Amino acid sequence: MEANAEASINKYAANISSIKEAQGRIGSYVHKTPVFSSETLNSISGRNLYFKCECLQKGGAFKFRGACNAVFSLTDDQAAKGVVTHSSGNHASALSLAAKLRGIPAHIVIPKNAPKCKVENVMRYGGQVIWSEATMQSREEVAAKVLRDTGGVLIHPYNDSRIISGQGTISLELLEQIPQIDTIIVPLSGGGLISGVALAAKSINPAIRVLAAEPKGADDAARSKKAGNIVTLPQTKTIADGLRASLGSLTWPVVRDLVDDIIVVEDKEIIEAMKLCYQILKVVVEPSGAIGLAAVLSNTFRNNPTWNDCNNVGIVLSGGNVDLDVLWEFLNKQV
Amino acid sequence: MEANAEASINKYAANISSIKEAQGRIGSYVHKTPVFSSETLNSISGRNLYFKCECLQKGGAFKFRGACNAVFSLTDDQAAKGVVTHSSGNHASALSLAAKLRGIPAHIVIPKNAPKCKVENVMRYGGQVIWSEATMQSREEVAAKVLRDTGGVLIHPYNDSRIISGQGTISLELLEQIPQIDTIIVPLSGGGLISGVALAAKSINPAIRVLAAEPKGADDAARSKKAGNIVTLPQTKTIADGLRASLGSLTWPVVRDLVDDIIVVEDKEIIEAMKLCYQILKVVVEPSGAIGLAAVLSNTFRNNPTWNDCNNVGIVLSGGNVDLDVLWEFLNKQV
Repeated sequence: MEANAEASINKYAANISSIKEAQGRIGSYVHKTPVFSSETLNSISGRNLYFKCECLQKGGAFKFRGACNAVFSLTDDQAAKGVVTHSSGNHASALSLAAKLRGIPAHIVIPKNAPKCKVENVMRYGGQVIWSEATMQSREEVAAKVLRDTGGVLIHPYNDSRIISGQGTISLELLEQIPQIDTIIVPLSGGGLISGVALAAKSINPAIRVLAAEPKGADDAARSKKAGNIVTLPQTKTIADGLRASLGSLTWPVVRDLVDDIIVVEDKEIIEAMKLCYQILKVVVEPSGAIGLAAVLSNTFRNNPTWNDCNNVGIVLSGGNVDLDVLWEFLNKQV
Repeated sequence: MEANAEASINKYAANISSIKEAQGRIGSYVHKTPVFSSETLNSISGRNLYFKCECLQKGGAFKFRGACNAVFSLTDDQAAKGVVTHSSGNHASALSLAAKLRGIPAHIVIPKNAPKCKVENVMRYGGQVIWSEATMQSREEVAAKVLRDTGGVLIHPYNDSRIISGQGTISLELLEQIPQIDTIIVPLSGGGLISGVALAAKSINPAIRVLAAEPKGADDAARSKKAGNIVTLPQTKTIADGLRASLGSLTWPVVRDLVDDIIVVEDKEIIEAMKLCYQILKVVVEPSGAIGLAAVLSNTFRNNPTWNDCNNVGIVLSGGNVDLDVLWEFLNKQV
């Protein structure tokens, strides 16, 4: 697979050049997030774990990288009418913050069932909230209307080259901070994060393993990889509210070709990983953010001899936006 | 007060030399903890706030600095029979970890009502737990017996020059990381932390304001400062389990002379500050750890014109060890 990856690495929606360009473009706006490690967690996992703390990114999630790259890629004319998106979560607040920094409006279509803290973040950053029903159809219809009304630019949460390039800057930073990384584990939802991370990491070192972590109740990417084409699920059921999206036309080819494996974990494993993040690392992560730790501790991963030599494992803690009351429910409920 | 402070700064249990020595002694063992800031919290407080994240210190609290300095100050002969302490909290696990690093035993007397996660930390670091009743009398009696039985060295949680010097290294780091700091706000319990922080900071720059934060239900230090002598309370009542101790003979003179003021806050203000730490900074702090933020946001502080020019405020987030179930109770209960 690595040779194949090397040969084909420039045919995707982003590449090492666009990712390095993104790094230059967003460098003065984003936090270079710290990498934490813990002897206790190394001991539990039997590996050296390096936690890339994107939960400490501005806006509380990696999404600010892509949003910032997209917003600052626009020409002044494009930017003038503002940006538009539909998102239940971290992309919405990230885009609001990026737009605020550029001084342009952000129109955010949010489904009524979105986590409260994520809606508050959008408002705090000056995003203009337009409510939709919880269905994807309603989200898209309302967004289309907002686009017509404002003349703004749609910034999709993940199926966008600028977004993918922005997320890829995580690999550039992580491999500079911890050069001995041999494996990176990344939460997988729509695929923007893992596409950027994989394209950058494999370009720097094709031998690095890039593994996805996906919740069992939204394992469309694992099913897609098995089937050889995009599979969508009629419905999803997981506490990881950030991991319910489906693959896009730009992210699927990267997941298909460059992601070495997808580790599917149960919600109860995600909860256990969240607890460890709080108790040991002392960082606040949301369920979606903790899934990489859940994956490395899962029997699926531990019992697969292919991964025996994954010794220095980077884990992206992707976000930390969680309603405290919801958190408690997660932490006490052994799903 | 500053002139007085300068003249008398060498008459206390620690000084800038002993603190710099401590830094050299413990430098390879302790984390140089990061300093976080947040535009949202700056906006809420109307100041530039710099959070020194000792909750990310090894063992989850600043206590590891002092414990490490004490343990590595011992001669080999002194160290051979191990160290002994009585503590309900972070000092216990910090001393266990420091002893483990030196390869000597740690005998820890723990009252039966100690937070579960703190007891687990002691055990995780190999400390030998001896239970006592919850009263200070029982703690001291059991510790005296352990000292007789083992021949070990007592390391008091705060009334010890080595401990105070170790905690003082926080100021050295913070003022190197953020040179423009003009004010430092520190949780106050037995006074070891604030004594070290004040002695180092005032020695480097006598104009720096050092303010203590104390819970209303355990405000013995505020009362002591008012009375001009150590006042002890018959009982304490606060959710901040780490802030219930009384001043010691070595820490009282520093608090009396060098601490510019003590800001007393209500438990509900501590809870609100904890929430902000979780929601905005994304770090896990215990109630005692969040009290500095509570103080800077309190009306007592805001409405006192003396502090109008406290523009660049360092806040020590002193620890992050909190039982998750207890945490939830705090966060939902508007005390």
